[in-house]
Amino acid sequence: MKNYPFTAIVGQDKMKKALILNGINPKIGGVLIQGEKGTAKSTAVRALADVLTNTSVVNLPVSATEDRVVGTLDMEHILKTGEKKLEPGILAKADKNILYVDEVNLLEDHLVDILLDTAAMGVNRIEREGVSYEHPSRFVLVGTMNPEEGALRPQLLDRFGLCIDVESEKNVEERMEVIRRRLNFEQNQEQFEKKYEQDQNQLTYQIQRAKELLPAVEINDHLLRAVADLSIELGIESHRADITVITAAQTLAAWKQRTMVQVEDIYEAAELALPHRLLQDPMKENSSYQKLTELLNQKVVDNQ
Amino acid sequence: MKNYPFTAIVGQDKMKKALILNGINPKIGGVLIQGEKGTAKSTAVRALADVLTNTSVVNLPVSATEDRVVGTLDMEHILKTGEKKLEPGILAKADKNILYVDEVNLLEDHLVDILLDTAAMGVNRIEREGVSYEHPSRFVLVGTMNPEEGALRPQLLDRFGLCIDVESEKNVEERMEVIRRRLNFEQNQEQFEKKYEQDQNQLTYQIQRAKELLPAVEINDHLLRAVADLSIELGIESHRADITVITAAQTLAAWKQRTMVQVEDIYEAAELALPHRLLQDPMKENSSYQKLTELLNQKVVDNQ
Amino acid sequence: MKNYPFTAIVGQDKMKKALILNGINPKIGGVLIQGEKGTAKSTAVRALADVLTNTSVVNLPVSATEDRVVGTLDMEHILKTGEKKLEPGILAKADKNILYVDEVNLLEDHLVDILLDTAAMGVNRIEREGVSYEHPSRFVLVGTMNPEEGALRPQLLDRFGLCIDVESEKNVEERMEVIRRRLNFEQNQEQFEKKYEQDQNQLTYQIQRAKELLPAVEINDHLLRAVADLSIELGIESHRADITVITAAQTLAAWKQRTMVQVEDIYEAAELALPHRLLQDPMKENSSYQKLTELLNQKVVDNQ
Amino acid sequence: MKNYPFTAIVGQDKMKKALILNGINPKIGGVLIQGEKGTAKSTAVRALADVLTNTSVVNLPVSATEDRVVGTLDMEHILKTGEKKLEPGILAKADKNILYVDEVNLLEDHLVDILLDTAAMGVNRIEREGVSYEHPSRFVLVGTMNPEEGALRPQLLDRFGLCIDVESEKNVEERMEVIRRRLNFEQNQEQFEKKYEQDQNQLTYQIQRAKELLPAVEINDHLLRAVADLSIELGIESHRADITVITAAQTLAAWKQRTMVQVEDIYEAAELALPHRLLQDPMKENSSYQKLTELLNQKVVDNQ
Amino acid sequence: MKNYPFTAIVGQDKMKKALILNGINPKIGGVLIQGEKGTAKSTAVRALADVLTNTSVVNLPVSATEDRVVGTLDMEHILKTGEKKLEPGILAKADKNILYVDEVNLLEDHLVDILLDTAAMGVNRIEREGVSYEHPSRFVLVGTMNPEEGALRPQLLDRFGLCIDVESEKNVEERMEVIRRRLNFEQNQEQFEKKYEQDQNQLTYQIQRAKELLPAVEINDHLLRAVADLSIELGIESHRADITVITAAQTLAAWKQRTMVQVEDIYEAAELALPHRLLQDPMKENSSYQKLTELLNQKVVDNQ
Amino acid sequence: MKNYPFTAIVGQDKMKKALILNGINPKIGGVLIQGEKGTAKSTAVRALADVLTNTSVVNLPVSATEDRVVGTLDMEHILKTGEKKLEPGILAKADKNILYVDEVNLLEDHLVDILLDTAAMGVNRIEREGVSYEHPSRFVLVGTMNPEEGALRPQLLDRFGLCIDVESEKNVEERMEVIRRRLNFEQNQEQFEKKYEQDQNQLTYQIQRAKELLPAVEINDHLLRAVADLSIELGIESHRADITVITAAQTLAAWKQRTMVQVEDIYEAAELALPHRLLQDPMKENSSYQKLTELLNQKVVDNQ
Repeated sequence: MKNYPFTAIVGQDKMKKALILNGINPKIGGVLIQGEKGTAKSTAVRALADVLTNTSVVNLPVSATEDRVVGTLDMEHILKTGEKKLEPGILAKADKNILYVDEVNLLEDHLVDILLDTAAMGVNRIEREGVSYEHPSRFVLVGTMNPEEGALRPQLLDRFGLCIDVESEKNVEERMEVIRRRLNFEQNQEQFEKKYEQDQNQLTYQIQRAKELLPAVEINDHLLRAVADLSIELGIESHRADITVITAAQTLAAWKQRTMVQVEDIYEAAELALPHRLLQDPMKENSSYQKLTELLNQKVVDNQ
Repeated sequence: MKNYPFTAIVGQDKMKKALILNGINPKIGGVLIQGEKGTAKSTAVRALADVLTNTSVVNLPVSATEDRVVGTLDMEHILKTGEKKLEPGILAKADKNILYVDEVNLLEDHLVDILLDTAAMGVNRIEREGVSYEHPSRFVLVGTMNPEEGALRPQLLDRFGLCIDVESEKNVEERMEVIRRRLNFEQNQEQFEKKYEQDQNQLTYQIQRAKELLPAVEINDHLLRAVADLSIELGIESHRADITVITAAQTLAAWKQRTMVQVEDIYEAAELALPHRLLQDPMKENSSYQKLTELLNQKVVDNQ
Repeated sequence: MKNYPFTAIVGQDKMKKALILNGINPKIGGVLIQGEKGTAKSTAVRALADVLTNTSVVNLPVSATEDRVVGTLDMEHILKTGEKKLEPGILAKADKNILYVDEVNLLEDHLVDILLDTAAMGVNRIEREGVSYEHPSRFVLVGTMNPEEGALRPQLLDRFGLCIDVESEKNVEERMEVIRRRLNFEQNQEQFEKKYEQDQNQLTYQIQRAKELLPAVEINDHLLRAVADLSIELGIESHRADITVITAAQTLAAWKQRTMVQVEDIYEAAELALPHRLLQDPMKENSSYQKLTELLNQKVVDNQ
Repeated sequence: MKNYPFTAIVGQDKMKKALILNGINPKIGGVLIQGEKGTAKSTAVRALADVLTNTSVVNLPVSATEDRVVGTLDMEHILKTGEKKLEPGILAKADKNILYVDEVNLLEDHLVDILLDTAAMGVNRIEREGVSYEHPSRFVLVGTMNPEEGALRPQLLDRFGLCIDVESEKNVEERMEVIRRRLNFEQNQEQFEKKYEQDQNQLTYQIQRAKELLPAVEINDHLLRAVADLSIELGIESHRADITVITAAQTLAAWKQRTMVQVEDIYEAAELALPHRLLQDPMKENSSYQKLTELLNQKVVDNQ
Repeated sequence: MKNYPFTAIVGQDKMKKALILNGINPKIGGVLIQGEKGTAKSTAVRALADVLTNTSVVNLPVSATEDRVVGTLDMEHILKTGEKKLEPGILAKADKNILYVDEVNLLEDHLVDILLDTAAMGVNRIEREGVSYEHPSRFVLVGTMNPEEGALRPQLLDRFGLCIDVESEKNVEERMEVIRRRLNFEQNQEQFEKKYEQDQNQLTYQIQRAKELLPAVEINDHLLRAVADLSIELGIESHRADITVITAAQTLAAWKQRTMVQVEDIYEAAELALPHRLLQDPMKENSSYQKLTELLNQKVVDNQ
Repeated sequence: MKNYPFTAIVGQDKMKKALILNGINPKIGGVLIQGEKGTAKSTAVRALADVLTNTSVVNLPVSATEDRVVGTLDMEHILKTGEKKLEPGILAKADKNILYVDEVNLLEDHLVDILLDTAAMGVNRIEREGVSYEHPSRFVLVGTMNPEEGALRPQLLDRFGLCIDVESEKNVEERMEVIRRRLNFEQNQEQFEKKYEQDQNQLTYQIQRAKELLPAVEINDHLLRAVADLSIELGIESHRADITVITAAQTLAAWKQRTMVQVEDIYEAAELALPHRLLQDPMKENSSYQKLTELLNQKVVDNQ
């Protein structure tokens, strides 16, 4: 069975942008996709892997134990040789790949902690019964959740780089297109794949190009001030928020094939990186989100 | 002990239709049967297997552990040979069969998740202590539940293709016929089976015929628009709902020996696929169900 | 220690009738005895075994594990031979016997499920670590409970064929007789047994005779209609209720040495089979029980 | 360390009477002693053992597991011989002894069930992994509890033969005597023991004499009627209550060296056997206890 | 690291008195020290061990399991020899020592039970998988707790002989002295120890002397009456309270090098032994404590 | 990957001071850092290790078991040699290092107890299945927590020597500097490290110098009185508070290269050591903190 092509996804621009940015630059710190049932969140994640070459999706099921996540003692090896050996877990497989957690809000807190710590350090340290081992674990972290089924603790929410909201298509033509493409895909996957082959190659190339450009991207002091100012006015405590906005803005510049961050990059990045760091349930309350938009618009003007 | 013949079931047309459609086309995504105690839900499921040739009913008991469902290490093999081997579980047996979960609302959430993920992918991936294995697991999923004993999370509800409500027979003549047939069946199962042999063969043939016709069934753009429009007006977020309506409509057309979906197929399919995706407890609230009916009727007129 | 003779039990006619009917015809589906502490429920069950020849009482303690109920792997056999073998459990011992569950309302739900499923199928299927085995398990199921200590889920209640209420004796002469007989029994069990020997033999014979007559018992369409009508008017959803009333009525006819069910058999059977299937806590609310009685009386008149 | 002599206990006549009666006739069904902290409940139980020759006190700690109570597999034997053997538990040691459960209201319900079932049958049946074994387990069951720390379920309460309430001594002279004797005992146990030697021997003899007389004790029909009448008027459902009153009355007659039960024996027995079987919290509510007393007094008059 | 000397503790006279009395006479039944965080409760307990020669402090951590407390099977011995052996636990080490439980109110109830039973009997009986063993376990039981973090059940509270309340020093000069000594101690432990050497030796001698005198101490009937009267008037149910007051008073007399208990000994003892046995939260409510003081004062006058 | 240099941290003076003081003198008893998400608490802790030579950060994850913390039996050694050996745990590794507990308020209470007991004694005593072992465990304890996610019990709070509150930078220039430095660090860690090399060496030297001076630092009686007075007026029960204020003040003096404590050292130390020991939630309520400040200021004046 083939994956649905990333470029064939209708609408959902923010989700696609957030996924691509993390694909270019995993230092952004992952993306949390919030949305209702049946809105193709999983489809998008699997599709992303196809445009990031040499990358696959590693699933972390909600029922996974700590042992399966971080690795554990290899009992077979002990029984055969009498010596302890550690057997790598999901975090080892996730290295250089996408680590995907569906319904991340249902994962036990200490597993989310481990996940986010590893994501931050890029390394997983295992220690079991006196044996220790460490291996690189650099991955694009993607979590999805339906906010109706319980929230993430703010402590954990802050540690996802970006967070976006998906909704179903409300425009009839667009929704018809969603259905039409899905039916076409189901009917003949190879023919459908062919149709999007060029778009997919184009996207792969563009991501690769952005990766190469990224180290050269610069940001000036005016924009730095805009970011700091914004966080203070919105009452955002986390300095991590500021860093993420800038990192995402730099990645956006590279994506747009520039080496200088512009004010619109900051604007776009802030929209992806700040809302989930505003006070309680920011996405539900229009007011705080509007304040963010207004402030940012105003800063843009001030700084020009 | 023999099974009660499917064609001997009195009334319960929606339940029978939903089961047959899934028997023809498992891509519809299973059926959830809601109803009170003693309304022959289990009887109908077992009866379905007899008209789908080479198919049996695999039970998933509510108390099953994850190991028994997905498979686990074969301890005997390890003890004898010193090598790990995976022993297939219920999902392996379910392949090409009916997977039946009585009181699915009492199953642990993460088991329901595994079930529905497997149903969606058609594959079960086992991984235990460093050994991995995968096997096909394509089945007709049938769950039953008594809604008085607790609801399914909306997230899970959405992933059942169809959902129908059974009630006991309120018409005296019909109810007498229910009793009469059951007593006849108990008294002499072989004689009873004989009596329905022709009907059973006829049904088996019709299902087989529909399976063959299905790949050729087409749907036009007017009907596609009707489906998209309907979901938007009813506020249904899930795109999966739209796809299911169309897939069920195509299967209905094949069942009726047509290769062109007609507006009445959409109407019938929506009645089976949408009610459980309306806002909270849709089947209890007449108003939202009426709105569905009205909207669909109106669309039918508009699109003709 | 001997059992108190069944025929020496003072009063409690409904309980005795329900037990005897199940002794004649286990297809009735068991009996649930509700009553307060100290009302000799256990005594009656043990006494029944003595009048059903070759039958013993198998206890299912509330603290039993699933393994002890359905059977489990025989560890000794594995250790000795290296091969897996299943060791039968309580359900194997229950075959052809009385399976007695004291305080059935305190049993874990999934054990009650297993119990009632096995009772319905007459077969227990065990599957543990890749080994499967099935054995017949046809038993007279008797549960007792004190309703003050928590109810059974309606789903489970419906699956007990009959349900009766026992109360202590309120008539002084009768209560004195209860005490007198119990004291006599305690004082000299053999002498007491002698005294009831003839009654016991007579009862054993009558049960045996009824078993032989049962397959020949018939029921006419008028009575069938009465049953269906009654269930509809009382709002009983479960078709199982209708079947049980008829099955019990047929057994009553056989008990009375007739081969034709009469309207009074229906009346008696309905009193044992319907009250626990009425809406919530039927035995506590006089009204719904009265409605049952009135309706049945009226039907009896109408159908004559 | 020696036990405090039974005959040196100051006051607490009901508790002492209840213990002695059970010592003479374990069929009375045990005694539950309710009272506050520090009221020498444990001391009395241990003291009883000394006047019942060849009898010791077996403790059942509240934290005991089912395995330790009923017995379990002897792992050492299995490892050595490869054969299963059952190792007897506390119920085996309790045979012919006093089984003492301090804070019985804190014991898990299913252990209390096992306890009372065994007490009723006089036999403990063990079954573990296919091995079964049964041994006699006839004991004087004594439970103590502080009602402030939680009640026993009525179902379990009913199965204790007698139930008495202990309170601390409120009379100064008596309380001084309690203290004085305790201090004397602590100071020189052997001298103290000597002082009560004759009383202890006398009591032991009297108990032994009563045991021998007991089988010959008779009760007339007038008294039987009084008991039945009383239970009906007080609304006591449990027939076990009636039997216990009579059994205790017979034991009292034997204790008083009579072979004919008299009305005062009934009166005394009812005071020990009925209060805990009255409706909720009978000992706290003066009214129902008064009713008991009045009724009994009146019956006594009526029956004379 | 050395312990802070007992005689260097500033103030806290009641705590020191209660500890010394238990050191002289463990039959008093231990002491429970209640007080807020940081009030040197642990320091005092460790210091006590130094003045009771050949005595050490055995810690019972709140997280201890029953096995670690009472002892358990020695797995190593079984594996090596194939025979079962019991390995002593904390209660074995506690014999002839101080058993110290910090935050005793957080200990599981059944462990507190075991502790207090052992303290009462002076013996620990272990029984595991058929092996039994008993060893002496006579210890000075000291528990500490912060009442803000949850209460002890009254049942358990009653079984601590004495109970005292510690508070921080409110007098500036005294508090400065507390600090000064602590700092001196931290700076040069050996020099500090030297400074208190004579006081320590003196205290050790005095305790030893009191131990020798204790068996000869007598109490007259007037004082006995005072104790009994007091308990009755205060509504204290527990006879254990009376015995403890007298035992502590006798120990106080010995401590003061007298062989006759005087009325002031009773007064002092009652202050340590009664407050925690008054009705709920006695130490918080001035009124009941005042009543105790008034009553005792009055009795003292009456009895002189 | 390198650590961010301690001297490159912008602002956060109290946090830096508290960490350095503990680095100089672990007897202060650790520091608890409270603050919201994303305020670089972990960064600061890791940075501290670099300026304390030969010291590393040992992590204690919230999900750690008691065995992993205190050490456990080495199963491999037992299997190989048949002898028990204890395998050291996290507390062994923590010796002479920084023990870091992120989200310490989520750690199980009994683990916090073990931690703080070990910190107080400087020794970890392990005892498992009859084997005991003890090793030094002197560490700088650093805990962090987000007070929004639950509080520490006051009992545990009191045992942290110092407690400080971190907030995000509210000044724009400073916040820009935070961002600028972080970005520079991310871009070229080696170049960034170079830039702060001199500051880091300077700080390391200053800490080393303070360690040497510390034993010679003295404090006069006026200041001692000020501390005692302050605690009494603020109603602080814990004598530990007084000792900590003085110990921290002595360390401050050494840090400032003095051998005489001055009143401003007391002032600074009290600000770090007292707020978390005031009554409930002291840091939230301005009033009690102000009282602390006022009192201290006034004492300073009085004592000069």
